[in-house]
Amino acid sequence: MADNKKKVSAITSMDEDFAQWYTDIVKKAELIEYTSVKGCMVIRPYGYAIWENIQRILDGMFKATGHENVCMPMFIPESLLQKEKDHVEGFAPEVAWVTMGGNEKLEDRLCVRPTSETLFCEHYANIVHSYRDLPKLYNQWVSVVRWEKTTRPFLRSREFLWQEGHTIHATAEEAIEETEKMLNVYAQFCEESLAMPVIKGKKTESDKFAGAVSTYAIEALMHDGKALQAGTSHYFGDGFAKAFDIQYAGKDNKLTYPHQTSWGVTTRLIGAIIMTHGDDNGLVLPPAVAPIQVVIIPIAQHKEGVLEKANELKERLVKMGLRVKLDDSDNSPGWKFSEYEMKGIPVRVEIGPKDMESNQCVIATRHNGEKAFVSLDELEASVEAKLREVHDGLYAKALENREKRTYACKTIDEINNALTEKGDGFIKAMWCGDEACEDKVKEETGVGSRCIPLEQEHLSDTCVCCGKPAKYEVYWGKAY
Amino acid sequence: MADNKKKVSAITSMDEDFAQWYTDIVKKAELIEYTSVKGCMVIRPYGYAIWENIQRILDGMFKATGHENVCMPMFIPESLLQKEKDHVEGFAPEVAWVTMGGNEKLEDRLCVRPTSETLFCEHYANIVHSYRDLPKLYNQWVSVVRWEKTTRPFLRSREFLWQEGHTIHATAEEAIEETEKMLNVYAQFCEESLAMPVIKGKKTESDKFAGAVSTYAIEALMHDGKALQAGTSHYFGDGFAKAFDIQYAGKDNKLTYPHQTSWGVTTRLIGAIIMTHGDDNGLVLPPAVAPIQVVIIPIAQHKEGVLEKANELKERLVKMGLRVKLDDSDNSPGWKFSEYEMKGIPVRVEIGPKDMESNQCVIATRHNGEKAFVSLDELEASVEAKLREVHDGLYAKALENREKRTYACKTIDEINNALTEKGDGFIKAMWCGDEACEDKVKEETGVGSRCIPLEQEHLSDTCVCCGKPAKYEVYWGKAY
Repeated sequence: MADNKKKVSAITSMDEDFAQWYTDIVKKAELIEYTSVKGCMVIRPYGYAIWENIQRILDGMFKATGHENVCMPMFIPESLLQKEKDHVEGFAPEVAWVTMGGNEKLEDRLCVRPTSETLFCEHYANIVHSYRDLPKLYNQWVSVVRWEKTTRPFLRSREFLWQEGHTIHATAEEAIEETEKMLNVYAQFCEESLAMPVIKGKKTESDKFAGAVSTYAIEALMHDGKALQAGTSHYFGDGFAKAFDIQYAGKDNKLTYPHQTSWGVTTRLIGAIIMTHGDDNGLVLPPAVAPIQVVIIPIAQHKEGVLEKANELKERLVKMGLRVKLDDSDNSPGWKFSEYEMKGIPVRVEIGPKDMESNQCVIATRHNGEKAFVSLDELEASVEAKLREVHDGLYAKALENREKRTYACKTIDEINNALTEKGDGFIKAMWCGDEACEDKVKEETGVGSRCIPLEQEHLSDTCVCCGKPAKYEVYWGKAY
Repeated sequence: MADNKKKVSAITSMDEDFAQWYTDIVKKAELIEYTSVKGCMVIRPYGYAIWENIQRILDGMFKATGHENVCMPMFIPESLLQKEKDHVEGFAPEVAWVTMGGNEKLEDRLCVRPTSETLFCEHYANIVHSYRDLPKLYNQWVSVVRWEKTTRPFLRSREFLWQEGHTIHATAEEAIEETEKMLNVYAQFCEESLAMPVIKGKKTESDKFAGAVSTYAIEALMHDGKALQAGTSHYFGDGFAKAFDIQYAGKDNKLTYPHQTSWGVTTRLIGAIIMTHGDDNGLVLPPAVAPIQVVIIPIAQHKEGVLEKANELKERLVKMGLRVKLDDSDNSPGWKFSEYEMKGIPVRVEIGPKDMESNQCVIATRHNGEKAFVSLDELEASVEAKLREVHDGLYAKALENREKRTYACKTIDEINNALTEKGDGFIKAMWCGDEACEDKVKEETGVGSRCIPLEQEHLSDTCVCCGKPAKYEVYWGKAY
């Protein structure tokens, strides 16, 4: 039987075991494969194609905001890494060290970049001399290595792909504006391309990037109620410039330290897509980044004219600029339905002899399983509308999940009750700004501070922990 | 004075010191900057934009020939690298070793990939089981590390960017066809996009890739008469499959070893562009990969209407899909001319008040310094024609240089005479196939075998070295 060639086997249900469900999806949708390199993975064609779409869209947004791509070495000499004190303290414990080149022992060990601030600073010290050289708005698409103990595909791995923007500006104001601008670019991308609502906020002091004056982040809530940091944007002040002796001559010829930023998103976004939109039938992909946006499945394809018609529909959709696959393999339609549901393809078009008689086809949408008959004369407009419907539907569903799982709490008891009664989610609660309270909330409830949202709500006058006057509203959560 | 802000300083002339000329260009055209990481460089925005164009075009060609992108880990455990004997012997002496992860010593050292055959093989062993799983046509765009002793930007560096295609096929015939197909893709790309003629050929036994049954290469001749290997394509037979125990069940259910290939080009292509087309005024870029294809320079830009007109021309050219820069900075036109000549921009458009009166502009072509007046009504067609003219002119000039510097020789004396009298170049000479003769030619003339060209000429009946019956025509040369 054709159906036996390759089985689309069922996956663990989300409610039964969310972690196993996730692992099943990354494997069965053929996003990744494990390797003998511990904590590292192969990103397979289907997974990598999602990343390519993310790259293409984000890269366009970076270039539209004036950024240029560069490429730094993947190695950082230990002596260079050590130049900024906080930075090296944050990263040195989790880097991979190259100690041998060929058969020779290296005098200055090289770490495989965990992030590239130090290299960019060295470069800026070489090329920035005058106010005319500023700003430099650089980005690179590379992989980085952090020696994690426990790893999970896309979410936490020893090597991961990312982009890292690094910019340098004449003034603090400009650098802060850049930091916020890129946070907004990330938020816009998540909402418009990944159909994923995010909270924009600032990290607390204890949660800042090593070497930053302030760290901004976008936080998303996954289907299971856990938070995921989807992107970060850091403002460095002139700390790195001082450590690396970067100075520029102003219009008045006075030497001044410039101000810097860095910002990044990673292949973790693929993990976020899975856990935001996926369901018990597999992956569900937002149309903007889906490697295949429309799959066409011929019904009774041996019947005269069916494959020709299916090909004709494909041509029409490709002409619209869509990414389309026609599966005319000898697997059964039922097998194909399951396969492309597992792969999360947003829209499925079915066409068979009966449809042809009535000059129609069936369009099914992955996110809600709905099917509709559509006149072939209106194929283009219908598919376009359905793709928008999928995007909007995914966004609404994700937002609904977040809202359902966001609990405003005024005391630690309320936090614990909410988590126990309603399950994991975002806690919104006021905070006095004292690190001791932040730690105590974590200790007594299990949720850590995720961010101080840029849009502040006034929930009460007092800190959720100590009862003293509150300074900020904070989002708290368990995090990936 | 505006002109003093940034000097476009002259570079060493090619004839005086070709190596210094090259170094001057990579620095002054702002392609790279050195770093404290020995043998590694920063690829700056202008250099990286050339690579992005190379990537975009080649990636399109790979996808059009059915290939998919993936991403393998950057590390290879020593035990995995050792599985194929010839391969490990070829690469182990020149790899960088990670021996520490955080503060822990690793039990199995990891090398930073010098190439990824072993990782692809491990992956194929996991995912290839049946003839239905074949072929797999994979590629990745990554960087690799080889611990070179002497390095030069783009030509030989410890880390370089490349793509590596890795494919696996049911039969030897299919794999050989793939090897040749990708060699042809490379040759076509070099000729159509880089305006660089290449010789397609097979490497001799002594010059094969470590682990390959046969290695194909494209060889280009640089301006100074030295050869540069611009791309390679390897056929592996089933050697790797046997070493990694990759087997597939055929239609008859019999287990069989599949056949593999790999192929790659690197950022070295940027070095090839520089040394094929550059001149004493700087870089000269082929239009297909030039980050900026047309630069517009307003003359007397303070005069009424000039900048508006320049902007209007820019909009018209951008609408054609061209990459256009309008330089309206307060540098003088003379400074701008030198700057964009150094940067190798193929076409320059000048527009000033007098031109506007006559409804015309000046179009200058970088490769030959010619200028022409063109009616503004015919701007689009004229610029398009000029860009084609630059491409064709560059190709013709490079071909002419190669032909002028290719010497057919029948004896070792003839080789030495040709090199002494006419300078470095390709030597075409017959060879018996004996490695001893290959070595002796190298020893006595300084030129090594570059390839056995696929299009064989019959130059004589006897080997250039021993006088015994000849088997092949060989191209010989000094190589980068």
